[in-house]
Amino acid sequence: MALVVQKFGGSSVATAAKLRAAARRAVRQFRAGNQVVVVVSAMGDRTEDLIAMARELHPEPNAREMDMLMAVGEQMSVALMAIAIHSLGCGAISLTGAQAGIRTDSISSKAEIKSIETARLRREMEKGQIVIVAGFQGVDAEENITTLGRGGSDTTAVALAAVLKADRCDIFTDVDGVYTADPRVVPNARRRDRIDYDEMLELASLGARVMHSRAVEIAKRFEVPLWVRSSEDESEGTLVTNVEDVEQVEVRGAALETNEAKVTIRDVPDRPGVAARIFGEIARSHINVDMIVQNVSAEGTTDLSFTVLQSDVPAARRTSRGLADALGAGKVEVDEGVAKVSVVGVGMRTHTGVAEKMFKALAESEINIQMISTSEIKISVVVDADSGERALRAVHDAFALQEG
Amino acid sequence: MALVVQKFGGSSVATAAKLRAAARRAVRQFRAGNQVVVVVSAMGDRTEDLIAMARELHPEPNAREMDMLMAVGEQMSVALMAIAIHSLGCGAISLTGAQAGIRTDSISSKAEIKSIETARLRREMEKGQIVIVAGFQGVDAEENITTLGRGGSDTTAVALAAVLKADRCDIFTDVDGVYTADPRVVPNARRRDRIDYDEMLELASLGARVMHSRAVEIAKRFEVPLWVRSSEDESEGTLVTNVEDVEQVEVRGAALETNEAKVTIRDVPDRPGVAARIFGEIARSHINVDMIVQNVSAEGTTDLSFTVLQSDVPAARRTSRGLADALGAGKVEVDEGVAKVSVVGVGMRTHTGVAEKMFKALAESEINIQMISTSEIKISVVVDADSGERALRAVHDAFALQEG
Repeated sequence: MALVVQKFGGSSVATAAKLRAAARRAVRQFRAGNQVVVVVSAMGDRTEDLIAMARELHPEPNAREMDMLMAVGEQMSVALMAIAIHSLGCGAISLTGAQAGIRTDSISSKAEIKSIETARLRREMEKGQIVIVAGFQGVDAEENITTLGRGGSDTTAVALAAVLKADRCDIFTDVDGVYTADPRVVPNARRRDRIDYDEMLELASLGARVMHSRAVEIAKRFEVPLWVRSSEDESEGTLVTNVEDVEQVEVRGAALETNEAKVTIRDVPDRPGVAARIFGEIARSHINVDMIVQNVSAEGTTDLSFTVLQSDVPAARRTSRGLADALGAGKVEVDEGVAKVSVVGVGMRTHTGVAEKMFKALAESEINIQMISTSEIKISVVVDADSGERALRAVHDAFALQEG
Repeated sequence: MALVVQKFGGSSVATAAKLRAAARRAVRQFRAGNQVVVVVSAMGDRTEDLIAMARELHPEPNAREMDMLMAVGEQMSVALMAIAIHSLGCGAISLTGAQAGIRTDSISSKAEIKSIETARLRREMEKGQIVIVAGFQGVDAEENITTLGRGGSDTTAVALAAVLKADRCDIFTDVDGVYTADPRVVPNARRRDRIDYDEMLELASLGARVMHSRAVEIAKRFEVPLWVRSSEDESEGTLVTNVEDVEQVEVRGAALETNEAKVTIRDVPDRPGVAARIFGEIARSHINVDMIVQNVSAEGTTDLSFTVLQSDVPAARRTSRGLADALGAGKVEVDEGVAKVSVVGVGMRTHTGVAEKMFKALAESEINIQMISTSEIKISVVVDADSGERALRAVHDAFALQEG
């Protein structure tokens, strides 16, 4: 008997018909003799008007109360999923994050899971129930409801799979696996059968729109075998695991991200501790910084650029302006018209010339590079937003990713 | 410093403007130096489509899962109410039934409050917060979410007022107090300034559409001073308390109820234990019986009639049919076209002739009485549904209730 965790995203539970299809998948696993835990997201846009109403009542609604409000979305989904499974003649019970023992810190809307008390989960499974757990949520030490923020339901699923030592964790989504690039942008992109945790991690954080990096990080740490699969068909999807290929291909995938903005602080005094102060202050404002580029100094000052999520632009602008004034720096410029294109592959660790090949492909397409950032297995460039999709296709072709 | 519990029904929180108006009332009490606990119902019909979806998935959705689903309604309201209070510059925190320490038994959709653990409520009040509690819900010993069924939010408010020893409990509703009869049916009905718990109890159980009897019972037991008030205006409303008038008027109010049905089991064998068996079985089917009438026996059998809520008709029909077969009784007849008219007054205890006056008024209006039931302070009759409103007006006039 195996233990299987299945996660269904919001689009997979948006209608009664889709709920029933998801329920059938859970029941099939259960009848094959497995224990099954199902993690469910909120249905489509059910809470959007609530958020609008909260904003109508208060320009900056309290974060704890917003978590209280948002958490209802998953609570609806789990109850309906349990009912859908009952209609197939199978036992099922729904649990909120709190009931499932998911304990978090107290950082509203961006909470982190601290521990999972599995007693009730195990008890219900031993009673022969399929257990449905509300994704995206937990409770802090004072029983306040918290939400996990971006990628929250994936994180719930993978964390549950980790603590329950599940044999597999299936992430059902609206794509049928992980591709060498987004097939909506790159028509000849190819589906991968397997992908390394590290590559997936880079892809997730690059916005490959499949899974959030937090969930992949947990999967990697606890070696959870993760399947990214379609809720629409029966294909096996892509297995995310430790890939130990003998022959390592240099680049495994390419990604485009369009939800970032570039912030530049001009004429920053070039002395020790300035960068630490700037990014310390930004972190304290709960703004996630992605790429950071600092050019070589000229005349004792330098220009500092970084990218943030577009949703964080107002906060980033405010914080940066304050910092520039405090440090005696110059103008703060924000450019929301940017796109980030990246290539990823564990093979980069041993291959050289990847950056050169990428930059050459972009140059041949006459696309100007604004920022560059590299890691051991990834190279990212920021380009003009209008050139984003063209850049992705150029890079995908340059590495012949469609050929496998 | 007083402790005030305020309860707002679904119609009082249905829009942002109404939420804000309710929030202003809470803040006004708070700024007058009081501790304030606000109990909120679900906003209007927000969960109706969820219920429809549940029924689409399963003809008889599991009761525990329906409670899980229904409880989101109040969770939305409390979060939004807290945000509305914040916008007025006041501290506020929302709590689910579970967080407010409301422990119930495990009877889904009809749970009863077993205890309330007030530690967190008191802690938040001592921090200077207005505490917003989700009405209608609690948790059982296993942390399953339960709902309290009909009149649930009133029950929550009164129970909280009782355990917190509140100085008053304001029930804000869409009427501005308790009337001698429903003013929509009896135009010259008069608002009462005070009403006795027992009278209110009879009125509530008679469907005076103001409060549910469960809540009034708790108020009576713990002597909670209850104000029934309008959320639309500033009038004081009606105080429900122990009325100790020297001069007791015989009848204080009249009520019409149209949501019942009459069930008759024909030719029931007239021997000891039969009635106990019938109503025992019906109680075990969780059907609430209101009036019961058994005529004198003829030839060893009798006809037994009782009234139930129309929503319980399918279950009552099934159970009655089974009982009739088991007991060798005759036909089961169900009549949904009935109305119940009642008069209530603690003065009846010492006055005679009340029944006579009521029956005479009905006779003069040529309204036929189908069933009669009396208690110490109430007389109810069942009449044809079409005559219901006319019967109410006739009785109201006969006792000159408009004159006070």
